[in-house]
Amino acid sequence: AKTAALGKPMTDEPIQPINAANVSNPALVQLGMQLYFDPRLSKSGFISCNSCHNLSMGGTDNLKTSIGHKWNQGPINAPTVLNSSLNVAQFWDGRAADLKEQAGGPIANPGEMGFTHELAVKTLATIPGYVEEFKKVFGTDKITIDEVTKAIAAFEETLVTPNSRFDQWLKGDKNALTAQEVQGYELFKNSGCVACHNGPAVGGNSFQKMGVVEPYKGDSKAEGRAAVTGKDADRFNFKVPTLRNIEMTYPYFHDGEAKTLSQAVEIMGRIQLGRNFSKEENADIVAFLKSLTGDQPSFKLPQLPPSGPDTPSPQPFDAKPVKK
Amino acid sequence: AKTAALGKPMTDEPIQPINAANVSNPALVQLGMQLYFDPRLSKSGFISCNSCHNLSMGGTDNLKTSIGHKWNQGPINAPTVLNSSLNVAQFWDGRAADLKEQAGGPIANPGEMGFTHELAVKTLATIPGYVEEFKKVFGTDKITIDEVTKAIAAFEETLVTPNSRFDQWLKGDKNALTAQEVQGYELFKNSGCVACHNGPAVGGNSFQKMGVVEPYKGDSKAEGRAAVTGKDADRFNFKVPTLRNIEMTYPYFHDGEAKTLSQAVEIMGRIQLGRNFSKEENADIVAFLKSLTGDQPSFKLPQLPPSGPDTPSPQPFDAKPVKK
Ligand code: HEC
Ligand code: HEC
Ligand code: HEC
Ligand code: HEC
Ligand SMILES: [Ca+2]
Ligand SMILES: [Ca+2]
Ligand SMILES: [Ca+2]
Ligand SMILES: [Mg+2]
Repeated sequence: AKTAALGKPMTDEPIQPINAANVSNPALVQLGMQLYFDPRLSKSGFISCNSCHNLSMGGTDNLKTSIGHKWNQGPINAPTVLNSSLNVAQFWDGRAADLKEQAGGPIANPGEMGFTHELAVKTLATIPGYVEEFKKVFGTDKITIDEVTKAIAAFEETLVTPNSRFDQWLKGDKNALTAQEVQGYELFKNSGCVACHNGPAVGGNSFQKMGVVEPYKGDSKAEGRAAVTGKDADRFNFKVPTLRNIEMTYPYFHDGEAKTLSQAVEIMGRIQLGRNFSKEENADIVAFLKSLTGDQPSFKLPQLPPSGPDTPSPQPFDAKPVKK
Repeated sequence: AKTAALGKPMTDEPIQPINAANVSNPALVQLGMQLYFDPRLSKSGFISCNSCHNLSMGGTDNLKTSIGHKWNQGPINAPTVLNSSLNVAQFWDGRAADLKEQAGGPIANPGEMGFTHELAVKTLATIPGYVEEFKKVFGTDKITIDEVTKAIAAFEETLVTPNSRFDQWLKGDKNALTAQEVQGYELFKNSGCVACHNGPAVGGNSFQKMGVVEPYKGDSKAEGRAAVTGKDADRFNFKVPTLRNIEMTYPYFHDGEAKTLSQAVEIMGRIQLGRNFSKEENADIVAFLKSLTGDQPSFKLPQLPPSGPDTPSPQPFDAKPVKK
């Protein structure tokens, strides 16, 4: 049915289609998926990676800033894990080089999962089903945080979202987009958005100033890339977010202050490019951006191996005062 | 391969096999599944039914008592939703007649999802994908809490776990259990456990005193069935829990004070029946109980429709004080 509309693939475009994941080690990916969904990597036994990067909701929590251990109010908006393997570096300020390095962070972050690597590993090592799986996947009897983060990263690498209508269009299916969406794309290119949002992820590959033409006014204390480089020139430089699946990853910006896509586009036009889009132009760009929603991760809800008798109990609450 | 070992099905046993779910309205079930996984039914936008009844972990949170809205420490252990359609009534004290009646409770419970029915419905009514689905499933343009709880209950009715090794054995496959497991089952029958734990759910069908022979000592303030009936005779009567998938639903009892299955069996024997099982007898019963783990729910992680521009933002934290 599709072939009828197939024209020539578009080349020389600033955005390229996303490729499907190529899984070379399914057992490793399956283990990583279980760990990603397992709240026993947190001190409370309640918070998993999927709590904040919910794969039912575009790989985010759709909150301004995240809720962490003991209901801690996080400092920054949680980016999507979808297509995060395409990022030049991880986190808004790029302080982790890759997904493996990143994955250790939240487990030990007191405001996120509130645990330690040592206790997380000790927990896994007392769960018979995991011991068996780590043995099968890594050939080891001794689990370390290195294997844990390696498995999670391998799972995350599968979280790409190919086959968006925009990608179908890029590949030559001229019916995949409406006229309005094509117009939005033209405007996105011609206005200069593609200077920063380009490549297969439509972003993710550079750090850029938030507020090029006009300063961005917000309450967040995040200073961006400067926190890593120590350079004043990097103040308020953030990793350009991917715009893939942007319809699902509201609210927008590092502080989550833009509730709707229309607001985010308005602000970007004004403070990055000095442009005030008309209502219609804004709607066209929003329509184009919504065509970037691709195939969401599709797998069976993972089953987690039950704890063993020696597995430490989760510690969600402060110990009760001892009765006298 | 199985047929070789097939003997005659066991009849006249106090436990019967669980039947697979019979889904007559797949669209209703699918909608219920999405709602079950949707944290937007909570005030914070963070807590869904699946947070506390995690279908990756036997339909529970595996915590002594649950974590709710703003990290509220719940008063009682969260029972599994697996096979809950077989319960005589819902909750430890049976205060909800059925799953539909039950499902309204947690949404509006300040210590669980912390929302109101009105706001939950208002939220759903602003999500275009849900509006369409409710229209398709119920033929209505106006969503009410009645449709919401009906859909969730329909999904929960599919959460049965047939095909445990014990059920295979009941059905005549003599190789499905080990000699130890059969011995454990004999002991479970002969000691009198089946007086309370019987039927397809191995429990769930009556309220019984916790501490028949010897009082149960715990810190919990729960008074059981008396909270519903007002009768003194019902003090410390609790719904007998299902023992299906009991390997996965630790910790045990209404206060979650028994960490291991071995402890729970020891306490039951002693305080319900005045029996002190030997180490070996205890191990046999535990082995039998682990054969009650059935097929876990198997479906693709649901995808949730994105919020619309008018969807109220979640309110996880107190409003910031207004700056002067
Ligand atoms: C309590 C909420 C929370 C939990 C739990 C959590 N994250 Fe995050 N995650 C965040 C936030 C917030 C950020 C952004 C932090 C920053 O950039 O400074 C983030 C950033 C990331 C990034 C970087 C994405 C990008 O584009 O830069 C990845 C990848 C990631 N998390 C994966 C994980 C994994 C894997 C786990 C579990 C091991 C996890 N997260 C647990 C909230 C959370
Ligand atoms: C000079 C670089 C640059 C240009 C030009 C630019 N952006 Fe951005 N864009 C960014 C950066 C950096 C961020 C993240 C800012 C932050 O959160 O502090 C961002 C964020 C966004 C977001 C929110 C993404 C999210 O997940 O929070 C959207 C939507 C967006 N840009 C669209 C556009 C559009 C549309 C244009 C053109 C009108 C545009 N951008 C032009 C750098 C740029
Ligand atoms: C914050 C934790 C939490 C959330 C969220 C939660 N529950 Fe529960 N659930 C519990 C606890 C605790 C109980 C036991 C309460 C009692 O018996 O007094 C329970 C009881 C139940 C029962 C009764 C089971 C039985 O055997 O009696 C069902 C069914 C159930 N919940 C389904 C749901 C559904 C559906 C939702 C979402 C609409 C939900 N729960 C949300 C913690 C939670
Ligand atoms: C007189 C009724 C009765 C008898 C006899 C009985 N039980 Fe129970 N059982 C209960 C009740 C009621 C509970 C829930 C008590 C509570 O949580 O306060 C329970 C709870 C349990 C639990 C924990 C279930 C959970 O999910 O928390 C296990 C395991 C169990 N029983 C096993 C047994 C075994 C094994 C025997 C025989 C040695 C036995 N029971 C005999 C009534 C009984
Ligand atoms: Ca137009
Ligand atoms: Ca966001
Ligand atoms: Ca339990
Ligand atoms: Mg959760």
